[in-house]
Amino acid sequence: MSESCPTLRRDGDQVVILDQTRLPHEEHYVHLHDLDSAATAIRDMQVRGAPLIGATAAFGVALALHHAADDDALHLALDVLRATRPTAVNLHWALDRMRAALAPLPPSARSAAAWAEAEAIQRDDAAANGRIGNHGLAALRPLATTGRPLQLMTHCNAGWLATCGHGTALAPIYAAHDAGMDIHVWVSETRPRNQGLLTAWELARAGIPHTLIADNAAGWLMAAGRVDAVIVGADRIAANGDTANKVGTYLKALAARAHGLPFYVAAPRSTIDFACPDGPAIPIEERAGDEFRLIHGIDGQGRLQSTRIAGADAAICNPAFDVTPAALVTGIICEFGIMPPDALASLQTP
Amino acid sequence: MSESCPTLRRDGDQVVILDQTRLPHEEHYVHLHDLDSAATAIRDMQVRGAPLIGATAAFGVALALHHAADDDALHLALDVLRATRPTAVNLHWALDRMRAALAPLPPSARSAAAWAEAEAIQRDDAAANGRIGNHGLAALRPLATTGRPLQLMTHCNAGWLATCGHGTALAPIYAAHDAGMDIHVWVSETRPRNQGLLTAWELARAGIPHTLIADNAAGWLMAAGRVDAVIVGADRIAANGDTANKVGTYLKALAARAHGLPFYVAAPRSTIDFACPDGPAIPIEERAGDEFRLIHGIDGQGRLQSTRIAGADAAICNPAFDVTPAALVTGIICEFGIMPPDALASLQTP
Repeated sequence: MSESCPTLRRDGDQVVILDQTRLPHEEHYVHLHDLDSAATAIRDMQVRGAPLIGATAAFGVALALHHAADDDALHLALDVLRATRPTAVNLHWALDRMRAALAPLPPSARSAAAWAEAEAIQRDDAAANGRIGNHGLAALRPLATTGRPLQLMTHCNAGWLATCGHGTALAPIYAAHDAGMDIHVWVSETRPRNQGLLTAWELARAGIPHTLIADNAAGWLMAAGRVDAVIVGADRIAANGDTANKVGTYLKALAARAHGLPFYVAAPRSTIDFACPDGPAIPIEERAGDEFRLIHGIDGQGRLQSTRIAGADAAICNPAFDVTPAALVTGIICEFGIMPPDALASLQTP
Repeated sequence: MSESCPTLRRDGDQVVILDQTRLPHEEHYVHLHDLDSAATAIRDMQVRGAPLIGATAAFGVALALHHAADDDALHLALDVLRATRPTAVNLHWALDRMRAALAPLPPSARSAAAWAEAEAIQRDDAAANGRIGNHGLAALRPLATTGRPLQLMTHCNAGWLATCGHGTALAPIYAAHDAGMDIHVWVSETRPRNQGLLTAWELARAGIPHTLIADNAAGWLMAAGRVDAVIVGADRIAANGDTANKVGTYLKALAARAHGLPFYVAAPRSTIDFACPDGPAIPIEERAGDEFRLIHGIDGQGRLQSTRIAGADAAICNPAFDVTPAALVTGIICEFGIMPPDALASLQTP
């Protein structure tokens, strides 16, 4: 998948994305023509997952500069894209990388350079995914026991849909499956956006045994001895190892600790924010209540539909992320290896 | 509400229940005519909540004996109703009470006695609710601080919909509101059956400020200092205080402990199973995956509809309950007071 990247690809002067708001029910591709459509795709979560958000933002800069490449256009593009989503730091990392590559260039050279840099970001993410998979596989192998599948649990979607390659949290799972390990994955629904359904869709396509559960069931499964390890992705990792990831991750980390289970975070170095000292300093996005109220699915005829579970007058609090303290994280699986969460400083200078 | 009991009432030789599978979208009442319709109402969760399940089962015996009251009919009714749902022990408690009242009587006296005993069970539950509310209020008062509302969190629905009176977990909340305390309730959605929507519906009718959250958001709110205490109901409390309640309760208890927050279980003594030594001995019901796949709501015209979020081929694990160890429970609020979870033995003999 890292070769063709179905989530995001350049098509001439446009960018084509897989609209993840329609998955797993419908595979629909959207053409992005300009800055606004790229910003909307990120804000409305047509693309999602920290690494893919970063790469999409980079292509958003390229789309903007295709139309105008002076300093004002560059700064506008960076500002608009930076404001789309607050928590995933890969967005800022990618935009900083674009600015560093483009600002020194004359406007006439920026458009071509922007496409090239965005494509490099995409390639680098796919390569990081591959290395995360290999390092994570090394962590999973010792956990395997004969006679039954290795029981892994994940939350949200940190697979190929969330990246430019094989994924972050799912990369070790794909690697384990490819290596012939007997595995089974507990897939947490991940309300309110139900990204667990994306993970189930990915795993079904790959032929990896898996079972959907309500987010609420995670503690019961661990207490029953039916989970061997938890692997999740990340949206921002603070310098001290505190990790922001999809809301609900923290509850799984608490339960994993209560039952002595390894809890791994898989993310590229671009997800580490060395300027952010700790979890309380990570901004947590609160999204609109309609995400909670409206549930997307299909009707009896297989047509897309939404059903409203709560009225417009119902007060809803909808944080998109939570923070798992470093002390609950067994290791951070990145492209450079498996890091203890209190040893990230060694990665600060490449 | 304890006077009229909208959840369950006798109407001549029938029983009328509020169909909770259509709430909060539609108020629809169902007439139960016989044993089978009573068993179906419990099994399909038209009635739900441990105390209400117990009372409905008692009325189910009365409905059965109205048609035939010999020993075979009595035993059949007890057996059929006992098999409807495995976890809520109030079901067994109510059926044991019915058997004790009816078995010694001649068949000709059983029908009238069954109605009387079922109505007594209903009255006793409403009375217990009232006392739970008062004892719980005494626990909440010291938690209140000036300048902001007392922030309570609950899970599932343990309000008047789940009982014959004012509820269990919600009884102290109603009592606090009636006493003029400034409170706000975080209402957890409670996937897969979304009973949090029932709680929000109850609280809205009572004018109690509340906010819906995804189950996943509980840890984030506690970490942010936005929760002062958690109160939940129970489906079965083992002799050692381990408590089975709606799946997801355990994750909230772990998070409450991590943040030093009181975690109360509110339930009548009939929910304590003195024959069950501890949590691992409590049978946990696993329900069909369609509960997870099909989400009930309303369409744009306000009509009831379901949307399917996962295909029939998706493997789903759907435990209805989990067990919170006694060590995580601050106190069990019952009609006799607030008991330390390791001191339940004192309640064994009335």
